[in-house]
Amino acid sequence: MAIVTIVYHSGYGHTKAIAEAVHKGVASVAGTTANLMAVDAVDWDVLNASHGIIFGSPTYMGGPSGQFKTFADASSKAWFTGAWKDKIAAGFTVSSSRTGDKAGTLDYFQTLAMQQHMLWVGTGMMPGNNSSKGSEADLNRLGAAAGLMAQANADQGVEGIHESDFRTAEAFGKRVAEVTARWNK
Amino acid sequence: MAIVTIVYHSGYGHTKAIAEAVHKGVASVAGTTANLMAVDAVDWDVLNASHGIIFGSPTYMGGPSGQFKTFADASSKAWFTGAWKDKIAAGFTVSSSRTGDKAGTLDYFQTLAMQQHMLWVGTGMMPGNNSSKGSEADLNRLGAAAGLMAQANADQGVEGIHESDFRTAEAFGKRVAEVTARWNK
Amino acid sequence: MAIVTIVYHSGYGHTKAIAEAVHKGVASVAGTTANLMAVDAVDWDVLNASHGIIFGSPTYMGGPSGQFKTFADASSKAWFTGAWKDKIAAGFTVSSSRTGDKAGTLDYFQTLAMQQHMLWVGTGMMPGNNSSKGSEADLNRLGAAAGLMAQANADQGVEGIHESDFRTAEAFGKRVAEVTARWNK
Amino acid sequence: MAIVTIVYHSGYGHTKAIAEAVHKGVASVAGTTANLMAVDAVDWDVLNASHGIIFGSPTYMGGPSGQFKTFADASSKAWFTGAWKDKIAAGFTVSSSRTGDKAGTLDYFQTLAMQQHMLWVGTGMMPGNNSSKGSEADLNRLGAAAGLMAQANADQGVEGIHESDFRTAEAFGKRVAEVTARWNK
Repeated sequence: MAIVTIVYHSGYGHTKAIAEAVHKGVASVAGTTANLMAVDAVDWDVLNASHGIIFGSPTYMGGPSGQFKTFADASSKAWFTGAWKDKIAAGFTVSSSRTGDKAGTLDYFQTLAMQQHMLWVGTGMMPGNNSSKGSEADLNRLGAAAGLMAQANADQGVEGIHESDFRTAEAFGKRVAEVTARWNK
Repeated sequence: MAIVTIVYHSGYGHTKAIAEAVHKGVASVAGTTANLMAVDAVDWDVLNASHGIIFGSPTYMGGPSGQFKTFADASSKAWFTGAWKDKIAAGFTVSSSRTGDKAGTLDYFQTLAMQQHMLWVGTGMMPGNNSSKGSEADLNRLGAAAGLMAQANADQGVEGIHESDFRTAEAFGKRVAEVTARWNK
Repeated sequence: MAIVTIVYHSGYGHTKAIAEAVHKGVASVAGTTANLMAVDAVDWDVLNASHGIIFGSPTYMGGPSGQFKTFADASSKAWFTGAWKDKIAAGFTVSSSRTGDKAGTLDYFQTLAMQQHMLWVGTGMMPGNNSSKGSEADLNRLGAAAGLMAQANADQGVEGIHESDFRTAEAFGKRVAEVTARWNK
Repeated sequence: MAIVTIVYHSGYGHTKAIAEAVHKGVASVAGTTANLMAVDAVDWDVLNASHGIIFGSPTYMGGPSGQFKTFADASSKAWFTGAWKDKIAAGFTVSSSRTGDKAGTLDYFQTLAMQQHMLWVGTGMMPGNNSSKGSEADLNRLGAAAGLMAQANADQGVEGIHESDFRTAEAFGKRVAEVTARWNK
């Protein structure tokens, strides 16, 4: 039995919606317990007992939100005791531009995972929508490798997120759960 | 009189086409000499005499091409003598995904500029195409800040580059030339 | 007359001490007004009226502190109005390891500066202490290019910061002020 | 039986010396086959058959050497066929500064690993030499998390590499081999 916890911040609901899709993908893997946890209600015992942790945050001003970073700083206690060592780590972010600085948020998540001595797993997906035969309906339409990227127009709510981004999020959650299960078998 | 040189590598012609659009933008600024230089035909005297240098490369396997990196390594002579100190620096990249790892190439360009003690200038453009009112015809449709990003489908030639990417490239070249002129007035 | 403001967060006093040394270097440039501002007492009018802004933060868990990131998020109002466009930007960080992930903090500062359409300037210093003739007393003993790095042992207070780090901070502040003056002459 | 291959470029012998120490650590894990391969003599069949790949390069001008990047570009064939998917990846770099831009090289290695759909593992070591009780003889004296960092003065040969860097390299190789074995059991 592997436990995978998604710990995320969401400012306006977009990241929460993607987190729920990731959660659905994690939960689809037999033998996996999937937890969804907001950074303003962290249960450190659950986090420390997880076999995999998936970080989620909107990209604000080119990086993870202040709320997420404040959570990351608080994880220094887990760092000090090595509580997260050799757990599986992964991450996702949402912003309003096609590219923007989403890479800045995913880069930070990787740095946090390395500080915590975790193993990092990315999307494992080939880029979608990068050939003349592709469309916005492709899985991984933004072509992300290090982690999951989703996009919603700045002046739209959750309804503005592409349907393919939800499917990509679910496939991503499934992959992270499968990797966590294999690592802990 | 400010001299701005674009030094680039292009594997299949896409980056060359964007480089030419950047060059057009640079040349549009009165009092600026615009040079276009491929990395397999570098004129170090011209580079060292430039007031601004714009780096360009496709994104291959998540970073600048081996050809560009080999040029960057050769610039260690300029580093040793401080020949590029206080020049203006900027950069652009092209790849086939909407996002991909274009940020990896632009991040490297910034690192190179900092090693060379240059000043870095980005697009200075608000993100396009990130609201429900936007379209792919917007300037800066990918929402890039640190440098110029362009995209072309993997199975298309130069004709696959969006018309808005060419306009963005031209506006970017103009901005870099204006910054270089102001810095050297 | 150029105005340069240092805006920083300090958790235990080390970053504040380095911020003061940077401030001293800025103030040493004739015709420059040097401001020192903590992120829990930001004066947005002063920031928005500055010609140069220097970001400072400890490196916590591989990036800027949550407190600094919360300030950066609040600067989205300045982003929206373009209030910081074409200002000079630079940054510094302090952590307890020789290397650690200080680069993560400086990388974020650069991303923030690019989002805000500023120009980035680094140390402009050759690396110290990297030859058999060097010593810990060299300027830029850690060999930083993108911004200023300082180090203090984890179990020491401000007295644990190397004397050369203070001298490097002062030289760095002077460089940023000189660049700001030249850009605004 | 797990196969771990170290693929590296070395310009002046320092990175080769560290690669050999990593190799020694890999080989110390029972049931592991350890291969050492220079980028100018790549055996793609051996690489593709490996369960773990460790990338190594000096840091030149803030990133991996042109020679290493040229090898990385050539790995696009493995990318296209998914030949490296779900392999373990790790990396190391050597430069002459205490800090310098070694992070740029390790960041690139992580990006390459993510493009190739691999899992990334870091040092898993707490930082050494960051407390007033520490010394240059500590394991991980530079405090690196994402990968192994070693340092040698610019004007010295292999004899200039700290003895603790060799011990750290060996411990790092052992960790990567143990992770690879666990992942493939």
